[in-house]
Amino acid sequence: MRIDKVNLDEMLSRFGDHWSPKTVGRLNDYELKVVKVQGEFVWHQHDETDEVFLVLDGELTIDTPNGPIVLGPRETVTIPRGVPHRPSAETEASILLIEPAGVVNTGEAGGPLTASPESLI
Amino acid sequence: MRIDKVNLDEMLSRFGDHWSPKTVGRLNDYELKVVKVQGEFVWHQHDETDEVFLVLDGELTIDTPNGPIVLGPRETVTIPRGVPHRPSAETEASILLIEPAGVVNTGEAGGPLTASPESLI
Repeated sequence: MRIDKVNLDEMLSRFGDHWSPKTVGRLNDYELKVVKVQGEFVWHQHDETDEVFLVLDGELTIDTPNGPIVLGPRETVTIPRGVPHRPSAETEASILLIEPAGVVNTGEAGGPLTASPESLI
Repeated sequence: MRIDKVNLDEMLSRFGDHWSPKTVGRLNDYELKVVKVQGEFVWHQHDETDEVFLVLDGELTIDTPNGPIVLGPRETVTIPRGVPHRPSAETEASILLIEPAGVVNTGEAGGPLTASPESLI
C-alpha cells in the first residue's frame, strides 16, 4: 500500500480561487480540505455536522449569533452543528477545514457561492 | 452557546511531556490532539481507524512496512487503519493528531508508552 504525504503549501500553490475548498486528505469518512478566502461568505449552517476551521495563513473572522470569532495562524475553532456562521477575511487567508465527506460549503443556505467538491489528491 | 477558539501554541506551552497526546478540539465523535514527540515510539497499529498526523514544528519520521515517511511543518499524512507504523523524531517535534475519540496512542500494541487521555479544553 502506498501512503503519500501531503505538503499543505504545495497544495495551496496549485489554486487561487476563493471559497472553493479542495480535498487534500482523507480520514475514514472525513476529509481535510484547504480553502483560500477573501471577502465575505454567506451566513449558513450545517445541520448534520460540526465543522473545524484551522487557520494556516492570514486572519479569519467567523461571525456567529453570539458575536465574531477572530482566528490567526495556528488557531482553530469548532463550529457546532446547527450554529449559523459567516466566515469573512479582509485580506486573503488560507484555512484547513475538517468535516465529513460530502459537506457542502454553503450548508443549508445554497446560493451562488456553493462550490463543487474538488480533490487535489 | 459559547464557542471558544483554541490557539495551538498556547496549548503546546502548557505541557512538556513526550508521546502523551492532549485533546485540544472536538468534531462530532472525533478529536484533535496535540502531542510533543522525541525519540522512538513503539510499532503499533489501529485496526479500527485511520489516523491523521499534521506536523506543527520539527520533523517527524513515520516508519511503515513500505519505508519511512518524513514530515516537516505543514505536512500531513493519513496512516490507514491496520497499517503498522512507528513514529520517531531525532529532536523534539510537535504534532496535531486527528482521530476518533477513544483511540489509544499505542493502538493494539500497548506497553509502557500507553498514555491516559488528557484534555486541555
